Formats: sequence, structure tokens, C-alpha cells
Amino acid sequence: MNPTIDILNAHRSVRTFTADPVPAEHLEAAVHAGQMASTSSAVQAYCAIDITDADTRREIAELSGGQAQVESAPTFLLVCADTRRHRLAAIDANQPHDTRLEAFLIAAIDASLFAQNVVVAFESMGYGICYIGGIRNDLPRLDALLGLPEGVYPLFGLCVGTPAARDGATPLQRPRLPLGAVLMQDRYHDDETMRAHMQDYDDGYREYLRERGVKDSQLAAAWSPRMAEYHRVPRRPALAEHYISKGARLD
Amino acid sequence: MNPTIDILNAHRSVRTFTADPVPAEHLEAAVHAGQMASTSSAVQAYCAIDITDADTRREIAELSGGQAQVESAPTFLLVCADTRRHRLAAIDANQPHDTRLEAFLIAAIDASLFAQNVVVAFESMGYGICYIGGIRNDLPRLDALLGLPEGVYPLFGLCVGTPAARDGATPLQRPRLPLGAVLMQDRYHDDETMRAHMQDYDDGYREYLRERGVKDSQLAAAWSPRMAEYHRVPRRPALAEHYISKGARLD
Repeated sequence: MNPTIDILNAHRSVRTFTADPVPAEHLEAAVHAGQMASTSSAVQAYCAIDITDADTRREIAELSGGQAQVESAPTFLLVCADTRRHRLAAIDANQPHDTRLEAFLIAAIDASLFAQNVVVAFESMGYGICYIGGIRNDLPRLDALLGLPEGVYPLFGLCVGTPAARDGATPLQRPRLPLGAVLMQDRYHDDETMRAHMQDYDDGYREYLRERGVKDSQLAAAWSPRMAEYHRVPRRPALAEHYISKGARLD
Repeated sequence: MNPTIDILNAHRSVRTFTADPVPAEHLEAAVHAGQMASTSSAVQAYCAIDITDADTRREIAELSGGQAQVESAPTFLLVCADTRRHRLAAIDANQPHDTRLEAFLIAAIDASLFAQNVVVAFESMGYGICYIGGIRNDLPRLDALLGLPEGVYPLFGLCVGTPAARDGATPLQRPRLPLGAVLMQDRYHDDETMRAHMQDYDDGYREYLRERGVKDSQLAAAWSPRMAEYHRVPRRPALAEHYISKGARLD
């Protein structure tokens, strides 16, 4: 369609990088482009913390579930939903700072729009990235490591670097749901229509697994069964309690 | 830096559009590019509902606080955090679907990364967009209008169309926080450092207001005082209750 859409469509999560550093001007250009994303009423409720200290990286890699790329990526950014500046503004104006779920949700959305622009900017410069949701495994430990004050809620990490050729091949792109499963007109799909899309997708997903060398005996684990399994028991059940302890209200 | 970063940096919210429709192939290309954004463990917890019905548009414009562009935009998409497919997968696998805040947060993040890619794709094709958070003003009414099932949580709208020349000029770009306020290294800023960034920003923000023709007497309303005022009382206090009534857990 055009070169920018080509960049969006070429996205793959990259987890192995060359040793080349990310120059400061590239990092700053990407973060600046992130800041130009839409922000609700200009609240700009986000921050990115560039983690350069090797020991800190090692601890974050460990608490994220042993994800080696957190340690090995040339650049690792921690992206937070960040209401700290609003709190300081309230203190300085001698006004109450009184929020509910809306303020937290806006911050999470703002930070995500920001981050995705940062990602697209990096990818347009030839870098590869991967998001690290695993940092949410142990937020109290992450907080202790980084000394994050009240009002700052870590959401995810971003590994950034020049993609290493892995076994000489580009990692396969994981297929997405059929367009018709996520784009609807005027009404939400009835369950049978949605199930038909899921069935189509599962068939294609098995093909993808086969290409990745997954054994036939494991091909039952297409997308739908994986999603059912994924949500069988609550994930990261301590998350809300931690955000609340940092000043968020989720009610 | 490069043409894609130029597109990211040129973003402005566009609220007046020409009558030219958005062809289906452009909408589909943008949504496809949205789907290629990162998604946590491939959950793809989002949907976009293309609202074409004029009466529905009028009601959404009204409940969003009288935002005329919701009615007048050639295309209006409602973007939802969407866990419906996971629920169907759980039912079909005869497994419990048991989630906490993590699942809701992942869906909100996933939907935001998706939407920002959709936006970048549209802007790369020459369209203008604006996000509409105002749809969260009255989610029970929106739900009744659209018949959204359990597990589908509306987040924001997206107006899309060809920008109309407004008074022959491009709308001014609202300045963002200084880069140093949102990009930090290894530690979060102490309060005095952050306050210095906020002071710099407020000075620049007053200049921007002056250029927009805001009267001198109102220039006190720079960013920090506006943020203090914005969060003085809770916004959209019924939000959590509605999402919970639709099946979300926020604890």
C-alpha cells in the first residue's frame, strides 16, 4: 500500500540482537515520535525509563520469567502509566487529586499509544523490538529495584536493537485472526459467526505450527484451545493490589 | 529522520473532514496493519466496530458530549477491549474462564496498540483522525445502542476522513512535555527535577496558547494548573461498575 504500512505489516517480535548499541539520537527520535501520539486532554500520562545498569537488567530479566533478551538487548525501556506529574501539579495548586478507574485507564491507554509510536519509529529505522509483559510478574520487586514513586505504574518493557539473523532466517510471522473476526459493522457478531471465524483461524494456526516444526500430536493446541487454557486460572493475581498500593484507584 | 517518523511527528487531531468516503479497501488495510501490532501471547483482545448507521452515529455523538465529528466523520470506528472470543473458547473447551485485572489490562493495552497502528496506517494514506474518549461518558447507553455482549468493553472511538482545510490553515500542533520529562535513565526523577521540566513546559504552553489567540488574562491556565483542575474530582465514576457488569474483574 505504502512504505509505512509495509513497516507495520512486517512487524515481528525480535528477541536476538547484534551487539550494536542504539545511539542516543535514535532513542530520542523514537521517544519524541511516541510523544506525538494522541493523548487524552494532553494528560501525557506515561514515561519510559531507559535501563542501562547491567545488574538491574539481570534482575528484571529474572523477574520477567528468565527472558534473556531483557539482559541482552542493546536497549531496554520500561514503559509506565505515569500520573506522577498530575499529582505534583495538584500539590502545587493546593487541590485534591481524586481519581477513579478512568484516570488509570487513560494512563494505560496513553502509555500504550505512546509505546506503539516508539515501536513504529524504531522499526522504521531498521531496529527490531519485543514487548515484555513479564515485568508485571513481580512489581513490588521491580519497584524496589527502581525506586518508582507513588503514581507510577509499570506496564511493560520494550527490548530494542538490531535484529540478529537467527539461523540465517527471519522469524516466522505469527498469523492473526481473520480480519472479519475483529472488524464488524454496526452490530457485534453473534456467537455462531464469531465461532466460524475462530474455526477458520484455528485451521490456519495449525498450518503455522506445522511450518514451525511442531509435532502433529501437538497440533490440537491451536489458538482457541490455547486461549481457553490461558484464562483457566487468573494470571498475575497480585497486580491490582500493587497498583492500588501505589496510589491507583480501580473502582 | 525518515518518512514514517515524519508521519508520526506530523500527527494532529483532525475534527473536520471533507465528504469523501473512506473506501473499504483503505479501512481494511488499516485494520490489517492494526492486527500486525504486538499482542500479548497472541490474545488479540480487541475489535473495531464500523458505525455506519446515521441514527446510531447521532446518538453516539450526543452521548460523547456533543462532539459533532462523530456524526460528520466519513468513518467512525468504536474500538473495544474484547475478551469475547476467549469466553467462547472457554465454553467450547468446557473450562472455567477466570480472570482478574491482568486480563482486562492486557485487553486495554492490546486494543490500544492495535488502534495506534490503525491510526498510523490511516495517516500514512493521507487521512486525518481523532480519538473519542467521550464514548466512555455513557457506556450503558452505548451498549444498549449496539447490543454489545458480555466480555466486550468499549474504550474509545476513532473518527477518520480526509482533513478539510479549516480556515485555510493546518490546526496548530499542541506542544508536548519536554523529552526529558518522559524519558529517564535507570531511576525515576526526583520531584524537583520533574517540577523544573513542568515549569519549562508551562512556559512553552503559554506561548502556544498565545499563538492560538487565547487572551492574556487566561494564560495562567498552562498545563500544570489544567492538570490539577482536571483531576480535582473523579471523572466518569460509573466506568468500573459498567465494565464489571459486563464481566470484567478489576481486582
